Amino acid sequence: MPFVIGHGSDVHRFDDERPCRLACLDWPGVAGLAGHSDGDAAAHAACDAMLSAGGLGDLGSNFGTSRPEWAGASGTALLVESARRVRETGWALGNVSVQVIGNHPKIGPRRAEAEAAMSEAVGAPVRLSATTTDGLGFTGRGEGLAATAVALLYQP
Amino acid sequence: MPFVIGHGSDVHRFDDERPCRLACLDWPGVAGLAGHSDGDAAAHAACDAMLSAGGLGDLGSNFGTSRPEWAGASGTALLVESARRVRETGWALGNVSVQVIGNHPKIGPRRAEAEAAMSEAVGAPVRLSATTTDGLGFTGRGEGLAATAVALLYQP
Amino acid sequence: MPFVIGHGSDVHRFDDERPCRLACLDWPGVAGLAGHSDGDAAAHAACDAMLSAGGLGDLGSNFGTSRPEWAGASGTALLVESARRVRETGWALGNVSVQVIGNHPKIGPRRAEAEAAMSEAVGAPVRLSATTTDGLGFTGRGEGLAATAVALLYQP
Repeated sequence: MPFVIGHGSDVHRFDDERPCRLACLDWPGVAGLAGHSDGDAAAHAACDAMLSAGGLGDLGSNFGTSRPEWAGASGTALLVESARRVRETGWALGNVSVQVIGNHPKIGPRRAEAEAAMSEAVGAPVRLSATTTDGLGFTGRGEGLAATAVALLYQP
Repeated sequence: MPFVIGHGSDVHRFDDERPCRLACLDWPGVAGLAGHSDGDAAAHAACDAMLSAGGLGDLGSNFGTSRPEWAGASGTALLVESARRVRETGWALGNVSVQVIGNHPKIGPRRAEAEAAMSEAVGAPVRLSATTTDGLGFTGRGEGLAATAVALLYQP
Repeated sequence: MPFVIGHGSDVHRFDDERPCRLACLDWPGVAGLAGHSDGDAAAHAACDAMLSAGGLGDLGSNFGTSRPEWAGASGTALLVESARRVRETGWALGNVSVQVIGNHPKIGPRRAEAEAAMSEAVGAPVRLSATTTDGLGFTGRGEGLAATAVALLYQP
């Protein structure tokens, strides 16, 4: 089979005390996301989708607490390294599609910039969309932000 | 790369006062879904999946408040137009797979009808499945309905 | 089109009184999952993804209450039979990617074993990843476990 797909998701709690880092961009004036890392749920979901497609486990097994050299790594760094590890297996990256689910930040006005940053990190097209949950659930109540992703790999 | 994938999701709150419109069908006697539009979360998730795959942003950027001509558009109209915009980029639609997550309406007895209506709107096969969340979360409590979708495009 | 994709998800409530069965493995000492079946949400999500891709409906329409011969079937049995039904349509299974979302069990240490068991049931590579939701939502509060999956089929 010359193609394989994967998917992943991630959730981080909002933390007003932290700067917001999402989709490889800074979002000044927006509540940040909690976590040992920068809380970049969009990058993390994309990593999990790529790693799963490539048969490489997930963020925890690649960069978790047993790999202290990755403690606090940025979402961008994790994207770069996840893509590198996937390519090392012989697969090439076709594309990644990420959706951010939450009340803020507003992705639309900076979508092109975010897609460019994520695509550069991955070395393949990354698409970023956004939605809300009509006030329902933890994303609707503004407690946190979720992101989901799918990735397509191909045999080069 | 001759293939690209995308995904999306949508959530709408139930509103007893509205007629139910879901998956391009009317569901008489079932609580409807809130929203400026008809609240057709299944159609909306499918649109977001196709638009993301095609590199065209999302429902908000294509049909949001800055595009008043689309205010109140039906899910069917949004599917038709999203598919048209994707084709305009040169991609063809392979298939879309949508899952409805919620307590009602019951999709099973009308799956074939719903798949036919959605497939006609998109101009490619759309598959519709359904599940519940065992009483958990906002879907399990019957507060709203979620839908998730993936889409596969190909170079014709 | 020689390729088609599908996706699915499933949720089961934790039930301390039951043994835990997940991803075709037993997890001694871990709270089990409620349900008429063994509650194997990972297997169920994978089945829904494959059945949707193959245009075969979902778990409910294939193995639901109107098919009493499947009452209480294990996740493994449902995977085997879902894959068989997909192949009967003429599609072959490319791969399946499953993510488990919840506080326990810890997938990492037994990922290889779980992937081997699920892949054997399906007859194609199944990837298994895991994540948590930072204490948010029903998965974060430990009320239940969710699983999501995507599947890729090809024309052999």
